[in-house]
Amino acid sequence: MTVDYRSLLLKMFRAAVDAAAPARCVPAHLPSRPKGRTIVVGAGKAAAAMAAAVEANWDGPITGLVVTRYGHAVPCERIEVVEASHPVPDEVGADVAARILRRVGGLSADDLVLVLMSGGGSALLALPADGITLQDKQAINRALLACGAGIGEMNTVRKHLSAIKGGRLAVAAAPARVMSLAISDVPGDDISVIASGPTVPDASTRHDALAVLSKYRIAVPPSVSAHLGDPVSETPKPGDPRFGHVVNRLVATPQMSLEAAARVARDAGIPSLILGSAIEGEAREVGIVHAGIARQCSEWGQPMEIPCAVISGGETTVTLRGGGRGGRNAEFLLSLGIAVDGRYGLWSLAADTDGIDGSEDNAGAILAPDTVGRARCVGVDCKARMADNDAYTVFKALDDLVVTGPTRTNVNDLRVMLVTKRS
Amino acid sequence: MTVDYRSLLLKMFRAAVDAAAPARCVPAHLPSRPKGRTIVVGAGKAAAAMAAAVEANWDGPITGLVVTRYGHAVPCERIEVVEASHPVPDEVGADVAARILRRVGGLSADDLVLVLMSGGGSALLALPADGITLQDKQAINRALLACGAGIGEMNTVRKHLSAIKGGRLAVAAAPARVMSLAISDVPGDDISVIASGPTVPDASTRHDALAVLSKYRIAVPPSVSAHLGDPVSETPKPGDPRFGHVVNRLVATPQMSLEAAARVARDAGIPSLILGSAIEGEAREVGIVHAGIARQCSEWGQPMEIPCAVISGGETTVTLRGGGRGGRNAEFLLSLGIAVDGRYGLWSLAADTDGIDGSEDNAGAILAPDTVGRARCVGVDCKARMADNDAYTVFKALDDLVVTGPTRTNVNDLRVMLVTKRS
Repeated sequence: MTVDYRSLLLKMFRAAVDAAAPARCVPAHLPSRPKGRTIVVGAGKAAAAMAAAVEANWDGPITGLVVTRYGHAVPCERIEVVEASHPVPDEVGADVAARILRRVGGLSADDLVLVLMSGGGSALLALPADGITLQDKQAINRALLACGAGIGEMNTVRKHLSAIKGGRLAVAAAPARVMSLAISDVPGDDISVIASGPTVPDASTRHDALAVLSKYRIAVPPSVSAHLGDPVSETPKPGDPRFGHVVNRLVATPQMSLEAAARVARDAGIPSLILGSAIEGEAREVGIVHAGIARQCSEWGQPMEIPCAVISGGETTVTLRGGGRGGRNAEFLLSLGIAVDGRYGLWSLAADTDGIDGSEDNAGAILAPDTVGRARCVGVDCKARMADNDAYTVFKALDDLVVTGPTRTNVNDLRVMLVTKRS
Repeated sequence: MTVDYRSLLLKMFRAAVDAAAPARCVPAHLPSRPKGRTIVVGAGKAAAAMAAAVEANWDGPITGLVVTRYGHAVPCERIEVVEASHPVPDEVGADVAARILRRVGGLSADDLVLVLMSGGGSALLALPADGITLQDKQAINRALLACGAGIGEMNTVRKHLSAIKGGRLAVAAAPARVMSLAISDVPGDDISVIASGPTVPDASTRHDALAVLSKYRIAVPPSVSAHLGDPVSETPKPGDPRFGHVVNRLVATPQMSLEAAARVARDAGIPSLILGSAIEGEAREVGIVHAGIARQCSEWGQPMEIPCAVISGGETTVTLRGGGRGGRNAEFLLSLGIAVDGRYGLWSLAADTDGIDGSEDNAGAILAPDTVGRARCVGVDCKARMADNDAYTVFKALDDLVVTGPTRTNVNDLRVMLVTKRS
């Protein structure tokens, strides 16, 4: 059987994105119609598309309000869609968050609140607690990031400075039934981490938050110290009876999308190996490690006999050294291409399921066995482009970019290596 | 069954080293005794130990001369052992190389030359061609390295500036029978790369060497230009009849050692996955990628169900940022430990099979699930040590170094992750 590897890679990527597309993953999880009212609220890159999927599949009256990133709105008829700033929050997002809190207040046990959460929800739903300014919160966030605080530590602080995160949205909605549908873009799919868990009880305390600030010696304004010193800043805890009518459900995850891509490969007769759904590290180094794995497949049939697809997800990082163009996926792919240098019949795709690789217009790119050679023929020096963080330019010159536009969902990156023949 | 994971890791490392130990891997490959004389020559970190293994298993008269790294000699009775400088060559190595060339000259077709090659042989056997100085050769090597020339390009130049590499040793020994036994420390085990292939015909030409020097705009002294302009600098080519009596054989490779380690795990009831025998990349980033794979094993049973051993080999690199102590294996392991943070019941070992991790006195170290926590208890901040390239200090403080002393062989690093239970 002759396989068109380029088409296969694109088909695998499409399957990964489709598996996380709200129109596909939301409907099956919708609850039954309540006796009372149904209010839809939500935040994240996929919020508008999720709202549209609810509207299209909901039997009964429905109203609501969701916030998504600028450029990510889709038309809804009954649910209001607002666009706000991400990743740096703006006042629009804060206003929407306040309106969402009011919207879920005063409901009865017969009512249903459908909460639609996805990546980016944390920034889009940034509503500081009373007495704290958005600027204060942002300054503390930046300071924590700069000190190398872990994501767990960041979330502990964030949740105790917020009016809506760390379970507070669910508390505001009580006694209504709450069903939260989430698309995960976080390693481990911890629902208390996605959008900082507005419908999930929080095991961390304000004392933990203070300990984090003190550990990293973060200077905080008096308003913040006063807030964290006050028991009112405490988040609702696991076991809190107000969560008795709250259900949190994951409707799409990185792993589900990797599995969808693997099924496409299998249907084309190519077995897959999933390395990890949360692979991190510097993009160019992750590329070099992948080259070593491709080599082992080709030379020793390990960890898998060829032909095979080696699949991974998660977010790599790029430490800027040059002034070129390109996101982490293009950078990963060019580094892989240079290391492999046309061997192992290696075809590869790396792309962000949200449709945007970094700050460019592409979702990712495709590496072919002849990429480095073709680049040379058109006067592009791959190693020089690599040194300048300019991978986009290489794949653009070869017409090997993968361009989808915003997909209005996000389960992080998909990386696939097809190792096809002995070198 | 209760498994002592620390002991298992050490046993796996021992098996990897033993599989490459000359006393174990050389004897089975020794040829039959010739009608005439037997001359043993060789170079590399394992050369003395290989010579001792030949002496101990050879039936008949034997003489010879091998060169190894300072500190790597072992006593031999009939074969002379000389120590010289590695990785920067010295005049001692050049003198030995000249003596080896004379030693294999004037033999008959009834005689046998046993050539013992291992990692480091290239530097230890640095004999410039007539009219070129060791300093010239070294300056060109340094310049090529600084320009980012590939290993293939470096070898093309080296072989055409050498009096002994690129097949010239075998030509000097003709018409004697030549058998070369090699311990590989190079990705892909290409025998023309190990010690720059003194007994392997060379497909590259002096014109290729000139093209490399011109590509990177390396300024060369007139003696070097004159030499490469002269057909005498040409290496013997594949098909050369003088190689009719030459046999090159690999007696130990990184892959064989990984397989030996995998067998030990299997015998303990733990299945293995070999990721690659030539995994490269920045040590700390390779550690982060490994953390993602351990997570996937633990959370999804991919690429393998737990408990399992994920094994890899090859050489990572360390870009120095701080002033601490530690080789690439300690650095890999500390980065892995920080990323995993005690989860997945992860035990890991990373060590250099030559017994020396970088410039310290340890071969490597062991990471336990409680490493980061124990370090904290004794006042060692793992992240701060990591930032200072000071991983040695962490494992030393915890008494978790793996110390073997020089093993007198080298098949690169062994890295093992034992993922033992759900987090």
